[in-house]
Amino acid sequence: MTPFLQLILVLAIIILAAKLAGYLSTRIGQPSVFGELLVGLLLGPSLLNLTGLSFVTDPHIKESIHQFGEVGVLLLMFLAGLELELGDLARNTRVSALAGILGVLVPVGLGFLIGELVGMPDDHAVFLGLTLGATSVSISAQTLMELKTLRSRVGLGLLGAAIFDDILVILLLSVFTALAGGGGGAGVVALTILKMLVFLAVSALIGLFGLPWLFHRFVQLRISQGSVALAVVVMLFYAVSAEVFGGMAAITGAFVAGLMLGRTPEKHTIEHGFAVLAYGFFVPIFFVGIGLQVDVRTLQLNSLWLLLVVCVAAVAGKLLGAGLGAKAGGFSWLESYQLGVGMVSRGEVGLIVASVGMAQGLLDDEIFSIIVGMVLVTTLVTPPMLRGAFKAPASGQVKEAE
Amino acid sequence: MTPFLQLILVLAIIILAAKLAGYLSTRIGQPSVFGELLVGLLLGPSLLNLTGLSFVTDPHIKESIHQFGEVGVLLLMFLAGLELELGDLARNTRVSALAGILGVLVPVGLGFLIGELVGMPDDHAVFLGLTLGATSVSISAQTLMELKTLRSRVGLGLLGAAIFDDILVILLLSVFTALAGGGGGAGVVALTILKMLVFLAVSALIGLFGLPWLFHRFVQLRISQGSVALAVVVMLFYAVSAEVFGGMAAITGAFVAGLMLGRTPEKHTIEHGFAVLAYGFFVPIFFVGIGLQVDVRTLQLNSLWLLLVVCVAAVAGKLLGAGLGAKAGGFSWLESYQLGVGMVSRGEVGLIVASVGMAQGLLDDEIFSIIVGMVLVTTLVTPPMLRGAFKAPASGQVKEAE
Repeated sequence: MTPFLQLILVLAIIILAAKLAGYLSTRIGQPSVFGELLVGLLLGPSLLNLTGLSFVTDPHIKESIHQFGEVGVLLLMFLAGLELELGDLARNTRVSALAGILGVLVPVGLGFLIGELVGMPDDHAVFLGLTLGATSVSISAQTLMELKTLRSRVGLGLLGAAIFDDILVILLLSVFTALAGGGGGAGVVALTILKMLVFLAVSALIGLFGLPWLFHRFVQLRISQGSVALAVVVMLFYAVSAEVFGGMAAITGAFVAGLMLGRTPEKHTIEHGFAVLAYGFFVPIFFVGIGLQVDVRTLQLNSLWLLLVVCVAAVAGKLLGAGLGAKAGGFSWLESYQLGVGMVSRGEVGLIVASVGMAQGLLDDEIFSIIVGMVLVTTLVTPPMLRGAFKAPASGQVKEAE
Repeated sequence: MTPFLQLILVLAIIILAAKLAGYLSTRIGQPSVFGELLVGLLLGPSLLNLTGLSFVTDPHIKESIHQFGEVGVLLLMFLAGLELELGDLARNTRVSALAGILGVLVPVGLGFLIGELVGMPDDHAVFLGLTLGATSVSISAQTLMELKTLRSRVGLGLLGAAIFDDILVILLLSVFTALAGGGGGAGVVALTILKMLVFLAVSALIGLFGLPWLFHRFVQLRISQGSVALAVVVMLFYAVSAEVFGGMAAITGAFVAGLMLGRTPEKHTIEHGFAVLAYGFFVPIFFVGIGLQVDVRTLQLNSLWLLLVVCVAAVAGKLLGAGLGAKAGGFSWLESYQLGVGMVSRGEVGLIVASVGMAQGLLDDEIFSIIVGMVLVTTLVTPPMLRGAFKAPASGQVKEAE
């Protein structure tokens, strides 16, 4: 079989398995994303090893699947942005800032402590902490969409907190690598913050004034699927710009793009089209793809202990940090707990930080696979935990009805 | 920039350029696919060299773009199949068979003649002929969809002829490579035909009896974008099976899948979803991607003469062969001309045949780039020629209204 045939066969299996597993997951009362992640683990090298089957000879197939999956994350974050109103997000700034900042600092601190306790050098321990810092809000956003609570006070606070979270982690990483590399400290920090602010300001200005005009013109041209195609283009440009100009994660750019296009009259056409692109093709590949990257069998027994400790720190750190931050910002205890749970899942940013650490020699193979394991565990526990948290007297949903 | 960022930046540029060029193309009275192909040529190494720009460092980016584009061809052929009724196709068997078979034999003969005239060895000349044989109907199908004449007698005859065309080319290629490799002739031919027939029979049986039941069950499960996702899965499995079990082109499998799913009650949901996937994302990448693969500047002056002769043979061969076949099958002269024009464009099957020839040492670099050039020229001239052919007293459209 040609590499392309191998790819589409694997994609067909992935999408079919994801949809069936997602359905079974809803039958046992869990969000479908839970089943999709789990089936990825089963299809991955841990058990069935889909990309290692005899018909797969293309060495780049994992990379290709990863690329399709990454487009899925962008679509997911775009849809999360599209569902929100800018005003809603701005109303929660205080709670978002407190939950976002404390939600980073506490797990980073816990990670550092663990590193010191197992005898790592200081700079290695700091890096281990950093990898625990970054929330990946896409899983939670998806779960909250399924629970229809994304636009609740908790959902909005969570998405806002994730932005602060993202900014702070990237900032800490930039500062730390600059300091470790011997570069000038204060200047780098200032420059990093400046870049982010400039990116957010410019993309908001373009979004508020340029994009509505552009979409208005484009729709008049009667190009087939014109507004969906243009929205895809805007999303991709925002994602690239977020990383290149803003020094932030690409998913943050996609989220901001969705936020902006939610204000155009074409919102519903875009929303419907992106739902097809996301759930009909790309997103199942992303969720299953996470599991495909992990082989649980390579973890040694003593690594398993460390994995357990790191996972507990990752979960507890976010629950405590983000939860207490939310409480300090004015949320009820229940809402604070719900927001804290929503911040638990880690994802691509954590893995990016870990790769930077590997490249700089500050993390070894063992710690890297522990971090991958931690990302997977936190990702798997978040949907059921969130569902549990929202099953309690639904303050979030009451607030949503306001 | 990471390889993924490079990829999505290139994809964003491609989709934006394709949509704008497609629009401009319609403004000058041409199908949008014409502009999309042309802009690909401009973005390719011939002029702007998009994938050679300084920000692109990923060596696999062309492969990735190609993969996204290939998914686009599958979606295109699936949609072409979805638009048809099985009965319509069966009613035109005689004209399809004659046009398909003569439409292969005449250009293969002309190609062989050219090869002999420029002094190639016999087996090389046969191979040059073979590369001229295979029509790629996706461009014509797209153009006819835009002209709203796909379900005319000509459109149906064309799609049927393309199936015979595909079968015959693969058959000739299999026979010729088997003979050149010294394998037993008659056995191979019989086996190849048997495989194709078994594939078509099995996929039709599954399509007629298995798929409607499957979709009925799947829709009841209320999975998000369930019927679109399942249709994607079916399309991918059919595409893989066509090549692996049937020995046919993957696009033929996608076409058959569309044909089958057009009979399910979910046809309209699938059609709408696939239109989003195709025109909102994948298809522009395919059309632009064709141009990206070609560098017109590498052709030498004496190669240019040969390219010209090959292109004339490619166009004349299909017009004469397929046109006279259609006439013999009972079409009017105008309809025969229209069908002949629709068969002119070559595509991936011609390139696949050429790659096989390269691998067997039967084609050299120069001939290969001439074949790529011929594929591009025939692809570029087909949409305007088709449009011209249908501008004459529109017998096709009259028939469609019957």
